[in-house]
Amino acid sequence: MTSDTKLKATSRRAFLKASLAAGGTLAGAGMARAGDPLITEVQPWAQGFGDPVDATPYGLPIRFESDAVRRNVPWLTADPISSINFTPIHALDGTITPQGCAFERHHSGAIELAKPDYRLMINGMVDKPLVFSYEDLERFPRENHVYFLECAANTGMEWAGAQLNGAQFTHGMIHNMEYTGVSLRTLLEEAGYDTSAKWIYVEGADASSNGRSIPMEKALDDVIVAFKANGEALRKEHGYPVRLVVPGWEGNLWIKWLRRIEVTDQPVESREETSKYTDVLADGTARKFTWVMDAKSVVTSPSPQAPITHGPGPLVITGMAWSGHGRITRVDVSKDGGKTWETARLAREGENKALTRFYLDTEWDGSEMLLQSRAIDETGYVQPTKAQLREVRGLNSVYHNNCIQTWWVKPTGEAENVEVS
Amino acid sequence: MTSDTKLKATSRRAFLKASLAAGGTLAGAGMARAGDPLITEVQPWAQGFGDPVDATPYGLPIRFESDAVRRNVPWLTADPISSINFTPIHALDGTITPQGCAFERHHSGAIELAKPDYRLMINGMVDKPLVFSYEDLERFPRENHVYFLECAANTGMEWAGAQLNGAQFTHGMIHNMEYTGVSLRTLLEEAGYDTSAKWIYVEGADASSNGRSIPMEKALDDVIVAFKANGEALRKEHGYPVRLVVPGWEGNLWIKWLRRIEVTDQPVESREETSKYTDVLADGTARKFTWVMDAKSVVTSPSPQAPITHGPGPLVITGMAWSGHGRITRVDVSKDGGKTWETARLAREGENKALTRFYLDTEWDGSEMLLQSRAIDETGYVQPTKAQLREVRGLNSVYHNNCIQTWWVKPTGEAENVEVS
Repeated sequence: MTSDTKLKATSRRAFLKASLAAGGTLAGAGMARAGDPLITEVQPWAQGFGDPVDATPYGLPIRFESDAVRRNVPWLTADPISSINFTPIHALDGTITPQGCAFERHHSGAIELAKPDYRLMINGMVDKPLVFSYEDLERFPRENHVYFLECAANTGMEWAGAQLNGAQFTHGMIHNMEYTGVSLRTLLEEAGYDTSAKWIYVEGADASSNGRSIPMEKALDDVIVAFKANGEALRKEHGYPVRLVVPGWEGNLWIKWLRRIEVTDQPVESREETSKYTDVLADGTARKFTWVMDAKSVVTSPSPQAPITHGPGPLVITGMAWSGHGRITRVDVSKDGGKTWETARLAREGENKALTRFYLDTEWDGSEMLLQSRAIDETGYVQPTKAQLREVRGLNSVYHNNCIQTWWVKPTGEAENVEVS
Repeated sequence: MTSDTKLKATSRRAFLKASLAAGGTLAGAGMARAGDPLITEVQPWAQGFGDPVDATPYGLPIRFESDAVRRNVPWLTADPISSINFTPIHALDGTITPQGCAFERHHSGAIELAKPDYRLMINGMVDKPLVFSYEDLERFPRENHVYFLECAANTGMEWAGAQLNGAQFTHGMIHNMEYTGVSLRTLLEEAGYDTSAKWIYVEGADASSNGRSIPMEKALDDVIVAFKANGEALRKEHGYPVRLVVPGWEGNLWIKWLRRIEVTDQPVESREETSKYTDVLADGTARKFTWVMDAKSVVTSPSPQAPITHGPGPLVITGMAWSGHGRITRVDVSKDGGKTWETARLAREGENKALTRFYLDTEWDGSEMLLQSRAIDETGYVQPTKAQLREVRGLNSVYHNNCIQTWWVKPTGEAENVEVS
């Protein structure tokens, strides 16, 4: 260890100046390690060969990263076949979600459907019903877009209070991938859709079929019949070989193992859009068709599964924000439960209906914090507090909870899911 | 099958009109499938449960996608420990490369280095030599960027003619990921680098160390000390836990298992930048320090590993383009070996030093093609022909071959790597 005065001389940036003024330990820690045998001595891994290039034709994460995996919540997912698991967002950074750890939701399990067995029918109010093979789809012009997918039930347990202790469990029913596929508009035009038709009904090839109605206006706008995610084929659990991508809208509409698209003049009012995926209000009535996922954000680190493991000094607070209405334009972070806010830094300019990563490069004084983040999108919409949302929606809901989340970070660096009044 | 006249009535788009005028079979194929039991009958996968959500905490591709894996070339990689494998670019689309199938190049194998054992030293011409732990690095402000990494030897076998029959083997020493990490400039400022220093020397923790010199100007520009790729931790084979990201520059500089950064007043002229990674010219002299990867492109489908498997009619020609000098602004495609060119459609606006996906939505008449693509970047640079490149560089080179590639597509749909004069 050296004196603060000497430390100051080596530091050039305002960030680090602030750190040192507050008695920061970052550079100090660095210098304390100068005599560390891990850097001064030749280590075992520098004395022999590592793995050859033919070790893993398709690689997996290194064994030390076992924390960055999908998890389910046993009491929440009593039946794992028609249930959910959660993306380990506490362990991720950036914006892309690898398919291997992107959350799953199925209604009757992830089916195995080979490309030669794949068929997609377009029928109903069309000039000519069509049935496409996988190879047929590959002959239409393709698009590429990065979009988030959020399950309508994400953060659903928070309606009843802070129950699940971790960002993975409160906010992990989300992923963000680059999709490649054919515009649904192209396929509807190929079939010659009736221009008086107002809806489509879409269903999957699995036993649940998970049928949903989508307004024709959305179908003709930005919906994609996708066959690749993050450059490679969709994984089995994400709908291989073909799924629907419905940008900004609730995940239940993103039909996996897409089998049929019927052009209709009214919504089907299927099980999945009546008894499920509707918002039960305070008076017991249900508000149907809440498709768009409103602006939302969450701090992923520090968080209950990603505690602060160092002392006072420089701290990177990070999280992600998204909006089904378009681009995220600003994210604010509060350390005192919403009393005061600081504007976070967006890693890149917000992208349309895709995750945005935010950072607050700050100085932690070692005292407790009530950490919150608040997203604002290009429409000017501001992510609401839990109290504001309950005022409108009551306490009966499961779906569409986009409230501000609070983590109580203790002086030990540990964090806990709490509510602030 | 139905008549061309009836087909025409169902088609609304110019693309498909062209298809049908040329006797296209796309919609025809779709309709022929209308009575197909695969769509009219209930299939086995709709009659039972699929996999539960706890089946794969970390998932892998479905078994049918065994073509989308890394491969090496036995005669080229006699020693798999200090060698290369290739990204299956023929099977990918979009721009992101999943880490699991992103090519590897090591000089003494992929080592296993745990985060608690990780140290990074900055020494040499600095006010204060520093040693950082992994956790120290996490306390500095982070950046997120998507960049391509291309090995300098990518396409190297093409100097001697068309030898490797597949885009994976001719152009697969490339990948494109979203990196998260700390700006190298931040760390150099933390150590207080001598402003008269003109170079840094960087090395890895593996036995080869793979030391390279990088001009200070680049080090202070956009180099990142990265710990995440595509949102998650770097894979072992990509340098876990920390690698250098040197945007637009040859992959050999992107030191994996990054161990030390020395600030110097001159290049070290290490093995890796003298006997290797220099361009041997026609007269036998070697041109040193060719860092920037010039604009380049390749058609990935159709290609030898991705033949056309359908008859005449609509055909999507696709590929990727990149430039170490910045953004790709245009890609042209030729079907006749470079005599005539059509401008391809870029899936998204070109991004700085990142892969760009291009498509040519075309009509195949069933006759042979000599397929080529030609990239143009924001500096106005145009990807050269093989003849133009050989004129300047001779035939002795291995590295930095960014010539236009030719695939001979036969009437059967099969494709072959050929040279055109």
